[in-house]
Order: sequence, then C-alpha cells, then structure tokens
Amino acid sequence: MHIVYKSEATRGAHWQRWLAKYAPDVQMHIWPDVGDAEQVELLVAWQPPEDVMATFPNLKALLSVGAGADQFDLSQLPAELPVVRMIEPGLTQGMVEYVTFAVLGLHRDMPRYFQQQRAAQWQTHPIRTANQRRVGVMGLGELGQASLQQLVSLGFDCAGWSRTPRDIAGVRCWHGANQLGEFLAHSDILVCLLPLTESTRGLLNAELFAQLPKGAALVQVGRGPQLVDDHLLTALDSGQLSAAVIDVTDPEPLPPEHPFWQHPAIWLTPHIASQTQIDSAVAALLDNLRRYQRGEPMVGLIDRKRGY
Amino acid sequence: MHIVYKSEATRGAHWQRWLAKYAPDVQMHIWPDVGDAEQVELLVAWQPPEDVMATFPNLKALLSVGAGADQFDLSQLPAELPVVRMIEPGLTQGMVEYVTFAVLGLHRDMPRYFQQQRAAQWQTHPIRTANQRRVGVMGLGELGQASLQQLVSLGFDCAGWSRTPRDIAGVRCWHGANQLGEFLAHSDILVCLLPLTESTRGLLNAELFAQLPKGAALVQVGRGPQLVDDHLLTALDSGQLSAAVIDVTDPEPLPPEHPFWQHPAIWLTPHIASQTQIDSAVAALLDNLRRYQRGEPMVGLIDRKRGY
Repeated sequence: MHIVYKSEATRGAHWQRWLAKYAPDVQMHIWPDVGDAEQVELLVAWQPPEDVMATFPNLKALLSVGAGADQFDLSQLPAELPVVRMIEPGLTQGMVEYVTFAVLGLHRDMPRYFQQQRAAQWQTHPIRTANQRRVGVMGLGELGQASLQQLVSLGFDCAGWSRTPRDIAGVRCWHGANQLGEFLAHSDILVCLLPLTESTRGLLNAELFAQLPKGAALVQVGRGPQLVDDHLLTALDSGQLSAAVIDVTDPEPLPPEHPFWQHPAIWLTPHIASQTQIDSAVAALLDNLRRYQRGEPMVGLIDRKRGY
Repeated sequence: MHIVYKSEATRGAHWQRWLAKYAPDVQMHIWPDVGDAEQVELLVAWQPPEDVMATFPNLKALLSVGAGADQFDLSQLPAELPVVRMIEPGLTQGMVEYVTFAVLGLHRDMPRYFQQQRAAQWQTHPIRTANQRRVGVMGLGELGQASLQQLVSLGFDCAGWSRTPRDIAGVRCWHGANQLGEFLAHSDILVCLLPLTESTRGLLNAELFAQLPKGAALVQVGRGPQLVDDHLLTALDSGQLSAAVIDVTDPEPLPPEHPFWQHPAIWLTPHIASQTQIDSAVAALLDNLRRYQRGEPMVGLIDRKRGY
C-alpha cells in the first residue's frame, strides 16, 4: 500500500523508518516525493496540496496529523472522501497536562500572585478548596473527557457541555444550545476544547461571558477564531472575568502589538498546549492503516456535515 | 475539658462555635482569655506564649495549627510534653494542588513561555512527555505521599526520598544520606517537602544542586532556611538549574530588594502553597481531642528527638 506524508519533515522521516520496520508492506512517501501518484491511497497531512484529487486520483482518505481537521477546506474535498483526525495518547496527555496546569493556576490565584511578584509584594489571599471551585469544560470528545478525569481526581466540582448528550463519571453534563446558559452559570473556570465549526466561531463573546459567574476565568485551548478578542479585554476590564489562559489565537502567530501579550491578567502561550507525539502517534496511525485495509472505519473519522 | 486557642482570630471564633455545637463538653477559650488557667489541658497554637508551663501549669499537650512544628522552640518545652502538628485533608489538598501546578509548569517550560510573553515572542519548544520526566519528592510524609499520588496519575516518572525507608505504589523510593546522591541524579524536577530540622537546614545548597541532572528545576515548599539563596542564584546563572518555584523563604516576608522577586527563572509565592482549612481542620482537631480523652496517641505526634 502506498501512502504520502506531507507535514513536518523530522517527524516524517521518523515515521517512514518506523513503518519500514514494523509495517514493511506500507510504502510511505514524503512529500514532494509521491512515488507513483496513481497508486497513492492515503494522504497523511497538515495541509493537503491544492487540487488534491487531481494530484492523487485514487485517494481513498485524508488523515490529519493534528487533533483537528479545521485547517482543511472541506468544501474543496469530494463529499464522499473520508477525512480523519488524529487521536493518539500523546496528544491527549499533553492537553490534560496543559488544562490541569491552567485550571490549577487560575484556581489558586496565580496570575494575581505573579503580578504581586513583579511588584515585590508579599500578600496572601484566602484559599478556596477544589470542591468549592466549579470547572466547566466545553467540548466532551477525547481531550475534554481526559481533562475532566484529571480534574475530578483533583477534587474540582466538574461540569461538561457538548452539542449532543454525554455521560461522564463524576461530571454533571449539559448539552445543546438550550442548556448552555445553565452550564455557564455553574462555571467559575471555563475551559474551551470545542472544535472550530461555523457554530463555534465567535462563540466566546460578550454574551457568553455575561452568563458566567462574576469574576470567572477562561482557559482557551480550542481554536483562535472562537474567541472575540475585544470582548475578552472588555470582560477583563469590567471584572466580569478575572483572568484568562490562552493558547490559541487568530491569527497565529499573534502580532507583537496585540494587547494580549502585555495584559497582566492573561497568560499567553504559542499554541503549545499539546502536540502530536512522534512515537505514540505513529502507532495510532498504523492502527488506522490496518483498519482501512480491513475495511473498518478509522478512528477519528470526521462527520463532514457537523465538521468535526 | 478546657483548651486554649492562640492563633488567627477568625478561625478561632469559627472553631469555638463549631465545638460548642458538636462537642459541648469541650470549652475552647480564645487567647488572651484562658478561663481558669490551671484547668487548661491542651493549647492549640501557632506560637505558644513565653513560659508556657508557667502560664498553664497542668498543660498535657501542645497542638500546632499548621503542618509543621518548627515554629516551636522545642528546647523551651518540657521534654515529656507531647507536641502535635496538624494533619488534615484540606491542608494536604492545598499542597497537592500547588505541587501539581508547579511541577506541570516546570515540566511544560512555562517559566520560559512567560518570559517569551513579556517579550511578545511566539516561539514553540518541543514537548517532553510526562513519562520521560523524572520527578523526585524529598520528604514522604502525608503531604509528600499525597503529592506523589497525583503526579503518578499524571504519568510522571516518580521517585521519593526520605530519612527512613518508605514504600509507595508507583514510586521508586530511596532513603538515608547514602542514597541521596542516586535519588538526586534521577530528579529532573526536585520537590522539597522536608520538615525543618537541624539536618535539613541549608540542605538545598550548591553541593546538592550539583548532583541533579544539568538543567533540573526546583520546587521549594519545605521551609525557608533549608535553601541557601545565593547557591540557588549561582546554579540558575550557570544553567545547572533551569528554574525554581519557591513558596517559602527566610525571612518571611522576603524583603522587596531580595533578588528572587525579579529573577526571570523564579516563580515566587508568599507561603500560600497550603493553609489549614477551617472546616476540615476542626474535624481533625476534634478527632485528636477525643483520642486524647481516650488516652490514645494523637495523630501528628512529633518525635521530639528527630524534630518532626
């Protein structure tokens, strides 16, 4: 079987060697090498080439190397082409670590203590216990569920919200637009792990912030275009929100003059909450290749209509 | 039974009301009110009055309101007087949260990312997975064991060191002075949760830092006098250490001109890693009062010879 990889080079070389050793029947070509393009069945990419079907006339599926597929222009792809996103334990682990770090930091007033440090100010504030802190996670897929599991183990009062109903141990789950307000009212710390779709674009706006408890905090690890930057700044200025941890922006990189960089109540990281991990991801990739060969649905198959 | 409380007033008033309701046989006086001093059997305090036995001639035990008893001058107390420190779930929980936050932050290069934020610099660095990160906890009492349990659940490669042998699930344990070097060589992130004793005073010094892997990081949540400040600064300058999270200092508060405040690789917090929690601690206190009445040893009894 012939597949083509088109993404970061170091990872590609590693995966090529790994597959040659553990799955010698899989021929992985690294873009721009495509071998015999007519024989290529699967494309593993962050960004596919333009006119992908003309390049690979017999393509059977497109696999993202990342957790999302929102970087693909789905309208340019044949409606029947399966599109698959990456679900692999290393990527999940990284997100759990980042979300846990961010939630604990907000829970324990760390943005305030870090400002005090810069002012050489030794001043303590009361500690609220985790069971008195309500954490709400929007988006209850692989990453949201794994993050919640860790937060529950830390004793937080956890809630979740998703488009369709979910049932997660130890977590109060809401779903759908009708229940969004009630979920928000119960979220002292709101974590956004939603995929980017037309219905989540601009969702983190003034109207949503107003439904959170006064002084709530935000962890934005979804996608940049979900957040209305000016609305966040206004909410921080008014005290409706107390702090925000932001890992994704629009655009990326964020221009140096953007107000997020120097805002004292914002922690900004350059889209590093999680990355596909070379070693664990290639095992997940091979699992999907074997599923494909057996005619089974691949893990992470995208619902083209809902967009994730 | 008559007891005297001498510490923070708000907590004292709360405990007094709580005991009046749930343990009406216990008369808790709040210093400077002591009732009939000759009837006082137990003193619950952060700092006892000078000449405590002259003040309370029939005192049977001294209970600390905090996790440590190093604030007591044990040499001024009768050798046979039982001294008890506070072990209560709220205090443990706070420490687990802080240690988890600090370890995750160091693990994920957050001091570096926060410096980049101040420079408006969007630059990513590779992610090492938790199972490739060795975390070593010194001090394996209540707080150390609970912290390790959470770190194990996050997938870190965990080790522990203590004066005497310990056995903790999922944690490689070393003990005693002879095994300290081997433990340090396996600690990419070193967490100090040791009590302050004559053998731990000044323990975090250049000689110890030199035994850590190059570029290791420190979480200091023990007691201020354990750390030799100048040695830490030298180790950070040379790159032997990459970063430090420090919650306890000597003295406290740390003077505004101290170099820790503005050091870019140091996160400094004002001794807030954990606090005795009013609600959970009074239940732990009552448990100890009942043990005392039954003639059983109290939880947290200090070994006067070793000092903790």
